[in-house]
Amino acid sequence: MSSTATPAYDELAATYRRIHHLEHLQSIASWDQAANMPAKGNEARAAALAEMCTLLHRLRTDPALGRHLAAAHVEPLGDLEHANLREMRRLWQTDTALPEGLVQRRSLSTSRCEHAWRRQRPANDWAGFAANLQEVVAVVREEATLLAERQGCSRYEALMGQYEPGLSTATVDRVFGELRQWLPGLIRQVVERQRQQPLIEPAGPFPVAAQRELCKRVMHLLGFDFEAGRLDVSAHPFCGGVPEDVRMTTRFSEHEFLGALLGTVHETGHGRYEQNRPRELLGQPVSLARSMAIHESQSLCFEMQLGCHPGFVALLAPMISEAFGAQPALAPANLQRLLTRVKPGLIRVDADEVSYAAHILLRYQIEKALVEGEIQIADIPALWDEQMQALLGVDTRGNFKDGPMQDVHWPSGLFGYFPCYSLGAMYAAQWFATIRRATPDLDTRIAAGDLQPVFGWLHDHIWTQASRWPTDELVHRASGEPLNPAHLRTHLEARYLG
Amino acid sequence: MSSTATPAYDELAATYRRIHHLEHLQSIASWDQAANMPAKGNEARAAALAEMCTLLHRLRTDPALGRHLAAAHVEPLGDLEHANLREMRRLWQTDTALPEGLVQRRSLSTSRCEHAWRRQRPANDWAGFAANLQEVVAVVREEATLLAERQGCSRYEALMGQYEPGLSTATVDRVFGELRQWLPGLIRQVVERQRQQPLIEPAGPFPVAAQRELCKRVMHLLGFDFEAGRLDVSAHPFCGGVPEDVRMTTRFSEHEFLGALLGTVHETGHGRYEQNRPRELLGQPVSLARSMAIHESQSLCFEMQLGCHPGFVALLAPMISEAFGAQPALAPANLQRLLTRVKPGLIRVDADEVSYAAHILLRYQIEKALVEGEIQIADIPALWDEQMQALLGVDTRGNFKDGPMQDVHWPSGLFGYFPCYSLGAMYAAQWFATIRRATPDLDTRIAAGDLQPVFGWLHDHIWTQASRWPTDELVHRASGEPLNPAHLRTHLEARYLG
Repeated sequence: MSSTATPAYDELAATYRRIHHLEHLQSIASWDQAANMPAKGNEARAAALAEMCTLLHRLRTDPALGRHLAAAHVEPLGDLEHANLREMRRLWQTDTALPEGLVQRRSLSTSRCEHAWRRQRPANDWAGFAANLQEVVAVVREEATLLAERQGCSRYEALMGQYEPGLSTATVDRVFGELRQWLPGLIRQVVERQRQQPLIEPAGPFPVAAQRELCKRVMHLLGFDFEAGRLDVSAHPFCGGVPEDVRMTTRFSEHEFLGALLGTVHETGHGRYEQNRPRELLGQPVSLARSMAIHESQSLCFEMQLGCHPGFVALLAPMISEAFGAQPALAPANLQRLLTRVKPGLIRVDADEVSYAAHILLRYQIEKALVEGEIQIADIPALWDEQMQALLGVDTRGNFKDGPMQDVHWPSGLFGYFPCYSLGAMYAAQWFATIRRATPDLDTRIAAGDLQPVFGWLHDHIWTQASRWPTDELVHRASGEPLNPAHLRTHLEARYLG
Repeated sequence: MSSTATPAYDELAATYRRIHHLEHLQSIASWDQAANMPAKGNEARAAALAEMCTLLHRLRTDPALGRHLAAAHVEPLGDLEHANLREMRRLWQTDTALPEGLVQRRSLSTSRCEHAWRRQRPANDWAGFAANLQEVVAVVREEATLLAERQGCSRYEALMGQYEPGLSTATVDRVFGELRQWLPGLIRQVVERQRQQPLIEPAGPFPVAAQRELCKRVMHLLGFDFEAGRLDVSAHPFCGGVPEDVRMTTRFSEHEFLGALLGTVHETGHGRYEQNRPRELLGQPVSLARSMAIHESQSLCFEMQLGCHPGFVALLAPMISEAFGAQPALAPANLQRLLTRVKPGLIRVDADEVSYAAHILLRYQIEKALVEGEIQIADIPALWDEQMQALLGVDTRGNFKDGPMQDVHWPSGLFGYFPCYSLGAMYAAQWFATIRRATPDLDTRIAAGDLQPVFGWLHDHIWTQASRWPTDELVHRASGEPLNPAHLRTHLEARYLG
């Protein structure tokens, strides 16, 4: 019936369009679950979303897809279609690697572990937590083995590949190895230097309505399209929805406004990436955001590179004073010091721009060894203490809840994700170094409120490129070199020691 | 593999549970589309919902369902399972009656007609509208013919059956015939009588935030469970979501508050019906709300029977004064007069409790004749004028936009729905007559804020009965008699002439 020269490719494209439409409903219902849903709706929502998961898994692993993938390979396709086919094959490989029984055991053990963790963490109950985590690690190792066999790589690398396709442990070892050389020293230097700086704490309360308006004003400044998205509130901020309708969330506290504001700036980076993925290809794998590290590089471009830039902080300052009334703490120079205060501490999500990477170095080392079977769960607390001492000079002995129990990732079975945070910070510094080369007066432009050099570059080199190229090639095309952690060091030294 | 004695029934139940889960996502995404979605999200949302419609239609018309229905018939089922099977068969009959080509033509012609109507109505463009409506009527007649052949009834009756299963045109002719005898005289009498009553208009503005809090307070008073639902804003108020998480909407104007308040009371009636459908059966057809007329009887019990009851208005009055500040217009007696003012007019949705039914008598007469082919679209304006004169003494000549072009129903292809509104008003009066027999001091109880006699009766006789019985049997079990329009007459005469 078909008069096209690429019948198999066309079938594939139609299937992924169909999946995309159903994922749209899944995505909106998940956002709603976090942002709107009342308590008694949870059981029915969970059942509805589970039904959709099963349906999508069947569509993604339909044997017909495999046959079409093989047939499309020899069809006369253009470059973009070839890239799309490459991404389809990648998804198919991951989706079909795991037997349904393993997927179900994974889902059960992580649900149980995460659910119990919500009680066990405040109770500092390491023994109870470790018992549940044991099951999770067992199933994750099994998953990693199957994925690794399929891809011909190490087990931990196979897990990382789910979030950052093509990333090798050799690369991470190299860049994290460099980081480890200079980071602890830099942290000590910055802390010492900041000890002499005067700092005024802002005096609250900061009314939630004023914070919400401020956040929206800053999102406008950052180019967020409110006709294609919203800002709402949820317990854990995230950026969800669909590219045509991005659903960002934040959370407010009357006592403190910088957390919500910077969190919103962070999520706006994710949001603009999503809003600017290529529209004509939506629904096709080639239009998806490249990876988690690249996604995080966008949120960190917004939050750290731009959000804590002195020129940008000077743009924010009058908006903040308009929102809450003027006070000395809200003057640009003091705001800038508040936003860049370095304070090594126990908790990753509360960490500043400089010491954040130390938390990732530690987690990478531990989770990689754990997945590869080189250490066991019982070994974690001692390793944690040792690393926190070495990297941040912090003592965590006996404090499991603010130590290895602090993150939702492990109880949820998310192993291999943590490196993306620091790779994202490195990429963000690399993008800004590139933008600065193209726009030598960048700092002046930012201070004058002209953010177009930043947004224009990200739009052309990252957002609209989506998954057209493998990460390495995207990085090279964008910045003329491979991942280079020196840019992060240069950035941090300039901002914190300059 | 199955060890059950009812394998076919079990398969059916599992399929309907699956459909129910997917409908959950459809329902939340549709609510979101009306309550949250920004403009640019519409195209993607429409495509996602269309994909889900196609998927659900395939599940509902899967030939395996037909085989299981036949097999389950002879399995050893209990009463409830038999009732469930009866409802499954009814849905299957409707869902499989129409070929996919007709369903698509229906969807196309109604989309086109409704879309154009949004421009044509304000422009009073009857000729343009009539041309599009012609296509809609053609496809609706075809649909009605197929449904009628399947069910062995008249074409209009087949259409009504989609909203009110088992309702015959003979019944509607009988009860609407009675109504037509006394309604025009009653309207004239009430208008004459109210001419002498003093009436004070409330002075605004009425801040939206205060209106929202007032509406929520009244919903609490009416027993709405906010742990299983929400109130939000949309252009056209409706009650959506799922029984475990009911999403009600309203709309606010600073100039007037009674519309939003009474609209909210109305939707709360729909909402409590949904929240109280039997939980252990959710997902099964037997747990669905009985029909549209019964659903409307719940919203009208809340809005008219209870909401405009002098005892209830006396409960509302202090809440309203707290919300907006006291003023003479907000005293109970004046509020009551505002809520029960009868004013024959052109527009159905603005009509008062008494003259509303006249709008339905007119639409029933016209749409029935139109579907049966007894009149053509060109005949509508003259009939409309003649009936508006006879029933309400209103002249509509040349004013198409406030005449036959005022409702969204016909351009959307909704023929056979209008009778449900007035049948709902009749059922609501019949329920209250029954409640009054069981609770002779009902008026005193309501005035004292004890609404339990109303809610308890509705809970036991309507909400939790869901689709356990055909409508006629539900009505008889609840009230001891069939549909009896005399109760509506008694109610209106007591309230408006008593």
